[in-house]
Amino acid sequence: MTVVLASSSSARRRMLEQAGVAALCDAADIDEAAVKRRDGQAAAATIALDLAELKARAVTARHPGALVIGSDQMLDCEGEWFDKPESMAEARSQLARLRGRTHTLISAVAIVRDDTVLWRHCDSASLTMRPFSDAYREDYLAAAGPDVCRTVGCYRIEGPGLQLFSRVDGDHFVILGMPLLALLGALRDLGELKS
Amino acid sequence: MTVVLASSSSARRRMLEQAGVAALCDAADIDEAAVKRRDGQAAAATIALDLAELKARAVTARHPGALVIGSDQMLDCEGEWFDKPESMAEARSQLARLRGRTHTLISAVAIVRDDTVLWRHCDSASLTMRPFSDAYREDYLAAAGPDVCRTVGCYRIEGPGLQLFSRVDGDHFVILGMPLLALLGALRDLGELKS
Repeated sequence: MTVVLASSSSARRRMLEQAGVAALCDAADIDEAAVKRRDGQAAAATIALDLAELKARAVTARHPGALVIGSDQMLDCEGEWFDKPESMAEARSQLARLRGRTHTLISAVAIVRDDTVLWRHCDSASLTMRPFSDAYREDYLAAAGPDVCRTVGCYRIEGPGLQLFSRVDGDHFVILGMPLLALLGALRDLGELKS
Repeated sequence: MTVVLASSSSARRRMLEQAGVAALCDAADIDEAAVKRRDGQAAAATIALDLAELKARAVTARHPGALVIGSDQMLDCEGEWFDKPESMAEARSQLARLRGRTHTLISAVAIVRDDTVLWRHCDSASLTMRPFSDAYREDYLAAAGPDVCRTVGCYRIEGPGLQLFSRVDGDHFVILGMPLLALLGALRDLGELKS
């Protein structure tokens, strides 16, 4: 059976590859902001699950019979949702708001085959940014460069972004953007991976 | 100040590098088995801390004034300690013993400067191997090859080894072999990293 990852995220592709799952990548093109506006009153987990499913559904027509994986991640800090920053100025402001506080990363994944949702799953992790100095933030942004705008929360935990944190609780793969361990279990249950 | 990593572990070196800490590597040559035999009645955490300190102490003379980091990891499965397997046959037998059970990875780290231990820290993570089939185990060992003998527990969680597990609880870096987040905090407290 073919596994398709409906995501342009290199972190998700790398995660699957490293775990030994060969997947074809075909990114879905959906208007995430519209979904978030439409479902603005729902819980972040609900929206993440809906977006994961929507991304998978968006490409199933191109891959009949294949298991299509969609995934989404939301960042919630005391009720406020953060998207990827659109500029270094926005990254600077986001870091100022996240600093010294604990935020939640919610990662959702869905498996869809043709018109059928076979499985959905959501998990979260809790991360506390330390009260770093403004000088530290500037050094960090200068070193990270415009790449910070490609990440929710302005960091990659697997890089120097780790130095922003005093505490990290939760599954590493959930933090990277996809609940991989649960996904591997679902792929085994579906007969796609050996048991 | 110079930071020295008294370890030959490429995972630990990579961890530090990715977090943005430049460290010189100078592996300590100590007889770990002798320490484990001598301290056999102690808790695994005590031995891991002692070994981390011992590794750092073993190279301080070559790096006067430098912060030397030593680190050690132990695997405890229901009171039984596992070392790196010495052969594929031993890896096969270790996987059979770990399968379907929960084991603990204990990672310790110490910072020593000249004759002074500046800081020691230990943390643990809990991992449950699923009841995989013998056929799966053989496929896994064939794909992983002799490299499994370089890892405690016969797996790298950041590779196909993840498929061995049904559940993983605990800090990712503790699982990789060093409590990195706590170490970064200690290096900040010691003035080695910016705050």
